Amino acid sequence: MYAEIITIGDEILIGQIIDTNSAYISKALNKIGVSVYQITSVQDEKDHILQAFSEAEKRADIIIVTGGLGPTKDDITKHTICEYFEDTLVQNDEVLEHVKELFSKFITTPISEVNKRQALVPSKSKVLMNKYGTAPGMWIEKNKKVFISLPGVPFEMKALMEDEVLPRIRKEFHCPFILHKTILTYGVGESALAERIEDWENNLPAFIKLAYLPNLGMVRLRLTAKGDSKDVVEKEVNRQIEKLYPLIGDSISGMENDRSIEAVLGELLAKKGKTLAVAESCTGGKIAQRITGVPGASAYFKGSIVTYATETKIETLNVPKELIETHSVVSAEVAEAMAKNVKALFNTDFAISTTGNAGPSKGDSDAEIGTVFIGIATPNAVFSFNSNMGNHREKVVNKATNKAFELLQKEILKF
Amino acid sequence: MYAEIITIGDEILIGQIIDTNSAYISKALNKIGVSVYQITSVQDEKDHILQAFSEAEKRADIIIVTGGLGPTKDDITKHTICEYFEDTLVQNDEVLEHVKELFSKFITTPISEVNKRQALVPSKSKVLMNKYGTAPGMWIEKNKKVFISLPGVPFEMKALMEDEVLPRIRKEFHCPFILHKTILTYGVGESALAERIEDWENNLPAFIKLAYLPNLGMVRLRLTAKGDSKDVVEKEVNRQIEKLYPLIGDSISGMENDRSIEAVLGELLAKKGKTLAVAESCTGGKIAQRITGVPGASAYFKGSIVTYATETKIETLNVPKELIETHSVVSAEVAEAMAKNVKALFNTDFAISTTGNAGPSKGDSDAEIGTVFIGIATPNAVFSFNSNMGNHREKVVNKATNKAFELLQKEILKF
Repeated sequence: MYAEIITIGDEILIGQIIDTNSAYISKALNKIGVSVYQITSVQDEKDHILQAFSEAEKRADIIIVTGGLGPTKDDITKHTICEYFEDTLVQNDEVLEHVKELFSKFITTPISEVNKRQALVPSKSKVLMNKYGTAPGMWIEKNKKVFISLPGVPFEMKALMEDEVLPRIRKEFHCPFILHKTILTYGVGESALAERIEDWENNLPAFIKLAYLPNLGMVRLRLTAKGDSKDVVEKEVNRQIEKLYPLIGDSISGMENDRSIEAVLGELLAKKGKTLAVAESCTGGKIAQRITGVPGASAYFKGSIVTYATETKIETLNVPKELIETHSVVSAEVAEAMAKNVKALFNTDFAISTTGNAGPSKGDSDAEIGTVFIGIATPNAVFSFNSNMGNHREKVVNKATNKAFELLQKEILKF
Repeated sequence: MYAEIITIGDEILIGQIIDTNSAYISKALNKIGVSVYQITSVQDEKDHILQAFSEAEKRADIIIVTGGLGPTKDDITKHTICEYFEDTLVQNDEVLEHVKELFSKFITTPISEVNKRQALVPSKSKVLMNKYGTAPGMWIEKNKKVFISLPGVPFEMKALMEDEVLPRIRKEFHCPFILHKTILTYGVGESALAERIEDWENNLPAFIKLAYLPNLGMVRLRLTAKGDSKDVVEKEVNRQIEKLYPLIGDSISGMENDRSIEAVLGELLAKKGKTLAVAESCTGGKIAQRITGVPGASAYFKGSIVTYATETKIETLNVPKELIETHSVVSAEVAEAMAKNVKALFNTDFAISTTGNAGPSKGDSDAEIGTVFIGIATPNAVFSFNSNMGNHREKVVNKATNKAFELLQKEILKF
């Protein structure tokens, strides 16, 4: 059983946006046993879309199409679907009511004829209600193939996938079981690794595929297995992973996990009834933003201060001026004072702080670009960690944020 | 003149990585006048790649292929190219020397036979030297069509595009001039905007294409024009943009020059020598994070407090408890108190605050999900704005952030 994804929109083909929808859809389909054979991005142009439809139909059972469902002229997906399926647009009353409701609740301009056209759908399609937007999803069948049209706005598409598309596919198709497991390795290059596991790789059963994913100092080994029995697939994959340890166990650091570290952290804090505060300098709000991106964070996250300027570290966080003058604002001492003081200010059990130089130019300190100090305050200790996180601003901020979460997680587990 | 991009790798089709290479390549090609007709992502599978090659060759003049050039078993691009072009692999001595040099300089494990195979290239190809990695780029021609094979590692691919591929395309092809201009509009929905500019849109010359890009409270209008004469294209696009002002001038906030509103804001603040502080509740650090994402923000951004819990609004921001009890924590009064107090705390000229209910469940207030109050403090006034920003957490946060920046920008321009 194969699916294909077709994303429609000139903005993808001129590089104005990065297509993140396809990765999301591929991952979601894989989890329910549907393999994606091809992803195709095409222009807002009828003939091109028709061609992509007919090519995809030859190869796949399920074709998911995103984009081109807005109310304006350049959005032509609905009309193209009508042409492809020899169909016409008819008004769907439920969608019309929904559009009217969204307008009355959230939009100040009055509803127009153009907006009402969002309720027109191909007569042969089943409507998939889009609770977050005016463009409905559509499910339409032809010669035992299914075409599913979804809006291109990521959060609308995601909600439709989860609430409508995935349950319906699971119901109407017999899906095999697909398992991906990714082993993280450090310190050995791709080809050296390949030599050490050559015999093992050659003896893998046919239903297990291996891929090497090298990236800046680490190589991820991905095993993909497919079969009818979940039990058989899982057992065999685990058996093969066990066999890897005698060969490269010294460089395996663990298995890749699907959940974000801030979600894992949040669950830990909530379970233990502990609270957290944050003081950020070089990470500039990124840590707080990731923590508050987890629904329910208000149960354990009290708040954060971004002290971007040196003087605010002194004024709002009470970091002693002398400490900064003696050790510099990018130092273990300042990171630790920030963590300790923000913990006191918000009256929490734990606190994280960052101070560093993310580049591209030097700020209030002479520290080398990339230098970051992370402070951690726990119920009974304060300590700091530092390293150089590279010469790319975004990379430094992300690396520092991940490291802070990693350090905090170790500490929380002790309480 | 058209190009197509083919990205090879199962990791894309199972959603393990997001394909950012295609957006980069598309943008780079557009800048030198080459339009991308289609982007296709295919599996690590010979027949599938061959099929994609032959389909792309029918439609495009230039085919850029990324991925599948590593030294291990699952990397099959080179062998597939040989089959497609009826060619064989031969050793390239320059590449071999380069691989040896990289190993001696940066890699601790000794060079192996597998690594040396990186120097094997199709005999009909021109080698494009990859200074950052062991896999060379390749340029190979057939029936006046060009296939270019590049490594999938983003920074290796980017360096090869800039140093080798783009200059060579410019030399060997006659490229037209392509211009994209994007107009930023606020406050009017996509369909209302479309109605107001309907006549203008219908009268656009055929070589100018219009696209609507709506996103969280703003609509971007992108004009794309193509022609032989740079002068003619630029003049006509500018003339058409001028004609937009009488129609929708009140909602045009500027032109997109790949710059974000926070970058524009930052430049304004820096130029005027003014400073900014932020107090965030429902936006959870997002505002600070976007402000500090602009290099040089420390010149005008003093800091931010995320007061996620009601008690921290009282304790750290000195919002009077009675005010919260009388008006609720999600109210104009609290938003204004937060803005005023954070401005005083950080001693700045301007301040922004947010308080609201981003969902999915209600927090410390009874306010309807999506309700957001934004407070703005200027050197001589404090005011607030409120609206319901919808029922999706991420959307509420992003919309509130954009709206806060928009409100602030208007105020800064007065000083």
